[in-house]
Amino acid sequence: MFFPFTDSPLAQEKTSLRHQQQDGATPDTAQQLLAAAAALMTERNTIDVPVADVAARAGLNAALVNYYFRTKTGLHMALVRRDAAQAVADMKKLLASGMPAPDKMRRHLAAMIRTFFRYPYLYRLLRALLRNADSKAARELTQFFSQPVVETQAAILAEGVASGDFRAMDPMMFHLCVTGACDHLFAESSTLRYTFGVKQIDEDLCNRYAEAVVDLLMNGVVDHRRA
Amino acid sequence: MFFPFTDSPLAQEKTSLRHQQQDGATPDTAQQLLAAAAALMTERNTIDVPVADVAARAGLNAALVNYYFRTKTGLHMALVRRDAAQAVADMKKLLASGMPAPDKMRRHLAAMIRTFFRYPYLYRLLRALLRNADSKAARELTQFFSQPVVETQAAILAEGVASGDFRAMDPMMFHLCVTGACDHLFAESSTLRYTFGVKQIDEDLCNRYAEAVVDLLMNGVVDHRRA
Repeated sequence: MFFPFTDSPLAQEKTSLRHQQQDGATPDTAQQLLAAAAALMTERNTIDVPVADVAARAGLNAALVNYYFRTKTGLHMALVRRDAAQAVADMKKLLASGMPAPDKMRRHLAAMIRTFFRYPYLYRLLRALLRNADSKAARELTQFFSQPVVETQAAILAEGVASGDFRAMDPMMFHLCVTGACDHLFAESSTLRYTFGVKQIDEDLCNRYAEAVVDLLMNGVVDHRRA
Repeated sequence: MFFPFTDSPLAQEKTSLRHQQQDGATPDTAQQLLAAAAALMTERNTIDVPVADVAARAGLNAALVNYYFRTKTGLHMALVRRDAAQAVADMKKLLASGMPAPDKMRRHLAAMIRTFFRYPYLYRLLRALLRNADSKAARELTQFFSQPVVETQAAILAEGVASGDFRAMDPMMFHLCVTGACDHLFAESSTLRYTFGVKQIDEDLCNRYAEAVVDLLMNGVVDHRRA
């Protein structure tokens, strides 16, 4: 029931790339363009990177960006899909592992934070693509990224309640609360800069944040009557 | 030390309005325009409301919007300032009250969530104005809104640690984590709609969210060794 990816946009993307391969282009070309976009967004600390710059960085013709992704939004969606594919595969593996629920949840929360750190443009891309909830992009993104996160969390929560480790919580409330806590480090560059004097989120800050969030949320969800 | 509002943008705004009053215009006019902008943003569920529509709703000439707020960003900043002023005054009162720290924290967290519900455009305005951390708007907004929130939370946290009610936590980590948890209901309209079938955040959902967040975070921060 979890990760019903057979009809997902990811599967469609694979089909589409196979089709393009028959036309003489290679999936590698699309991947090179995505890697170039990711590198430029990371270096420049913005998601507003011109398509021409992406093609130049990849050493390819700018027309190929339109060929593979049609629009700039198409390029952005493909990039989120690429990064989400890894995160979703990791969640699937974690869920299938025999670990106790509290360990699974700790790792899941820390992994969410590290995913945003690993792809520094990801938080902003998600917010930009989700801004209009009525858009096709927002709907698709919810299916291939948010949905697996929601289902993973609900499953670990249920396991933990069943084992007596967690208190019972509404999975929707839990999802919103923990996701907000995990991504907020990446939402608050102004407060970080002007109130706390932090100009850049480095690996040390990311690790300390993951530790603090996991500590606070795990203390919030465990059933302390048991201890 | 907290709420050093003497030199704040809020105080500047008051001075500026007094100055304009001497020119024959009244501060009421500016307030009418802000009320009209707030009403239209709430009704249309978007912050993209034309200046002409704001003036028309207030029954005033569109040139007055430019006169009072110069730019659309100026109008947006003034609206956030108006709403923040109430929230900051409430925080100040809460902090000065004789309540035990856990009660103060519970009320503060619930109030953050209710502030976003009360002003349905506020979350989006804040995100739009803070998007570019280098901007003057982002810096000002951090001073008159984020800074008082950070200081209130740090003060309540310190009181709770001193009284033995709370575990010790880094105030920056605590601020990011709880603020993210409190505002995320308002960030996730796509997930709410497509995963949970929730099309609108009504008062009941807001109250249930506040209850769940306060419950999770308070369980996370209290020192359970004491119980």
